[in-house]
Amino acid sequence: MKYDVVVVGGGPAGLVAAFTTKRFFGDKKILVIKKTEKEMVPCGIPYIFHTLGSVENDYMGIEDRFKSAGIDLLIDEVVDGNPDEKKLLAKSGKEISYDKLIIATGSSPNTPKIPGVDLKDVFTVPKEADYLKLLHEKVKGAKDVVIIGGGFIGVEVADEIKKSGKNVTLVEIMDSLLPVSFDPDFGELARKELESDNVKVLTGRKVTEILGTEKVEGVKLDSGETIPADVVVLATGYRPNSELAKKLGLKVTELGFIETDEYMRTSKPDIFAAGDCVQHKDFLTGKPSRLMLASAAVFDARIAASNLYGLKVIRTNKGSLNAYSTVIGSKAFGSVGITERIAKEEGFEVVVGKAEAPDRHPGKFEDTSKLLVKLIFSEDSKILLGAQVCGGKSVGEIVNLISLGIQKGITANDLFTMQIGTHPLLTSAPTVYPLAKAAEMVL
Amino acid sequence: MKYDVVVVGGGPAGLVAAFTTKRFFGDKKILVIKKTEKEMVPCGIPYIFHTLGSVENDYMGIEDRFKSAGIDLLIDEVVDGNPDEKKLLAKSGKEISYDKLIIATGSSPNTPKIPGVDLKDVFTVPKEADYLKLLHEKVKGAKDVVIIGGGFIGVEVADEIKKSGKNVTLVEIMDSLLPVSFDPDFGELARKELESDNVKVLTGRKVTEILGTEKVEGVKLDSGETIPADVVVLATGYRPNSELAKKLGLKVTELGFIETDEYMRTSKPDIFAAGDCVQHKDFLTGKPSRLMLASAAVFDARIAASNLYGLKVIRTNKGSLNAYSTVIGSKAFGSVGITERIAKEEGFEVVVGKAEAPDRHPGKFEDTSKLLVKLIFSEDSKILLGAQVCGGKSVGEIVNLISLGIQKGITANDLFTMQIGTHPLLTSAPTVYPLAKAAEMVL
Repeated sequence: MKYDVVVVGGGPAGLVAAFTTKRFFGDKKILVIKKTEKEMVPCGIPYIFHTLGSVENDYMGIEDRFKSAGIDLLIDEVVDGNPDEKKLLAKSGKEISYDKLIIATGSSPNTPKIPGVDLKDVFTVPKEADYLKLLHEKVKGAKDVVIIGGGFIGVEVADEIKKSGKNVTLVEIMDSLLPVSFDPDFGELARKELESDNVKVLTGRKVTEILGTEKVEGVKLDSGETIPADVVVLATGYRPNSELAKKLGLKVTELGFIETDEYMRTSKPDIFAAGDCVQHKDFLTGKPSRLMLASAAVFDARIAASNLYGLKVIRTNKGSLNAYSTVIGSKAFGSVGITERIAKEEGFEVVVGKAEAPDRHPGKFEDTSKLLVKLIFSEDSKILLGAQVCGGKSVGEIVNLISLGIQKGITANDLFTMQIGTHPLLTSAPTVYPLAKAAEMVL
Repeated sequence: MKYDVVVVGGGPAGLVAAFTTKRFFGDKKILVIKKTEKEMVPCGIPYIFHTLGSVENDYMGIEDRFKSAGIDLLIDEVVDGNPDEKKLLAKSGKEISYDKLIIATGSSPNTPKIPGVDLKDVFTVPKEADYLKLLHEKVKGAKDVVIIGGGFIGVEVADEIKKSGKNVTLVEIMDSLLPVSFDPDFGELARKELESDNVKVLTGRKVTEILGTEKVEGVKLDSGETIPADVVVLATGYRPNSELAKKLGLKVTELGFIETDEYMRTSKPDIFAAGDCVQHKDFLTGKPSRLMLASAAVFDARIAASNLYGLKVIRTNKGSLNAYSTVIGSKAFGSVGITERIAKEEGFEVVVGKAEAPDRHPGKFEDTSKLLVKLIFSEDSKILLGAQVCGGKSVGEIVNLISLGIQKGITANDLFTMQIGTHPLLTSAPTVYPLAKAAEMVL
């Protein structure tokens, strides 16, 4: 088989890489190689337990669109390749030639080295439908569930499994929840939400052992305490899938991330990479970034695909802002840029503005939530470095607004005199719009 | 009475002018003079008929905050003044001296010259609680209500009165609804929403006469048709309250708007103006802008107040973007910048991108809406000039995101490679995020 552009991987990065290539270079023959027929919406996975109710409801359901876009699809696994001959070898024995290759192989869950981690009914949270169906079945039959790890996946899975009616304990080794994206003040708000839904939240606690003989029966903490568990879910991060990259001789970091330049080019000619398998650097600090997000993967993919044939200099990846939002209990949480804690660790001199207002006006409407905004500015220049938001569902797009602002280098003054539209049923009042008020605080 | 800073007007502009002055110049003695004790949330007024249910539920309820902020309040009306002596005269006979004066006298409804406009039960929509209480009572007792004018107020009032169970007809002279902020394609979406709620919408129709002997009985259209009406609501725009400005000898335009520079200074020293009473110019065309919005008023007020004592050069009003959002039927609508129609009239060579996607992902969640985005770019530079959005409640903040973008001169390329955060319960999927997809269309 010979193709102009081959994309390996069918997650958000692979998908967008293929469709963007089609859009920009419509005459190219494009092939996507992916391991399974059905693809899951990655960030929808925690919601299979209650809100979506099944693994099937989280399928992307875009298989038909490849065909109608004129993109070929091969369900197979690439097991080897030769970058000099520009050839790939699939598990089925098929050989595929490419002119340009985009690697979007994604990530897989970490399994921490805890004694007892191999016991039955100890699960990770991969993006594999069959595995998740089994996990879902086991959770349905369980009474007590313990989640290890209080990052995004851990918090979302805990919240959802609790809502499905189980006893849930969440154990996080750091002192607050979501420690990568939120400062402790917002971590505490997240804890309150989970606790008001009766999730037992234990921070600053390490699981020293997973207990049981054949099947898991509980976990033991460094405090000596034991917690019963019919199911344990490990939400302790993900590692890049870089086996193929290594076989192709691409430069990868010590932790296995593929190294790319800002056009998403790897160390070998005509091979690009996008998504969780790529080493991202932080937009502000330039240091390796720890988050893996579908939105960032898609961003990579757009840049990779549009730079395949000749560089469009302006389409570059200047680093990750880690814009992120989630829902915990009855509140939405969002974060973008760096936290106050990390800013200080990195030596930024910062000044923080905080403001709160109802997200409707007057605050008499039924679906009103309090919208709390924390903005972290460089002390001297008043340039915005990061933000954290907690409130109703508008948080999702408020984070994107702030993200655009940071990308454009906005200052407190810009936010203070920003022109906005407001409406009683949709936003905070213009008089108390929290982004303007938090900026005002630091001026 | 002698004050450092006097603010005339207690609407959003007056309020924010006073509080911002307090924040920036904490040692100044500040007085707000307003006509009535209770202030209404202006953009909440259409919602008194059904969603809020009463005039009282739309009170701002911020009277206490003046006191706690150390801002004096005088319920009175300024009837004259002498800018050379820096003195104001109130209706009560009180004389007030100021060092700096901010005029935020707002706007009042236009009454069109239609025969029969003086009949009983023909109303406008001012910001006066007592008048609105009477209107509300009359609407409650009515069977048939006719709204004249299909701009924001007309559309919102029609929607709300219909929801309260009345027969409602909306008559608009132009060919589509909301013609100032939306192109006809979005105007048609608004019409569909109203019609699916059984509002009778007549566009391209002029009311030639309001019928009745003492009390209104109906309206007559230029088509010859007559429509029965127990109540008629005139939603035919607002005019600036500039009587005081004229008495002070400030420069006002032919239509009565106060002229200011970009620091919101009027033609007389130490007198600033903010809000609906000010002549705004369009951000992109520089021409007089036709919209009056609380959000724009607040923007003026922040700039006026922060520039009172010495100009902060960077805090300037570079023109109005008219960022706006509303809810019609089951959908939210938003607009910012110029429409395609106006861009073409003004001689811009434009290119338009449109994209639609569910605002949740996967689209299986209960509160999923379709999110439609139309982006208007300068053809050559691909700089964003305007946008229209229709979808769920996230539209309110999406409009603000786009507004910030236009203020920062973003291009299609910026939007295409914008870093965003996405979440199943809060936003569209990153793979189909409509702002990126609509931008992609024009690249």
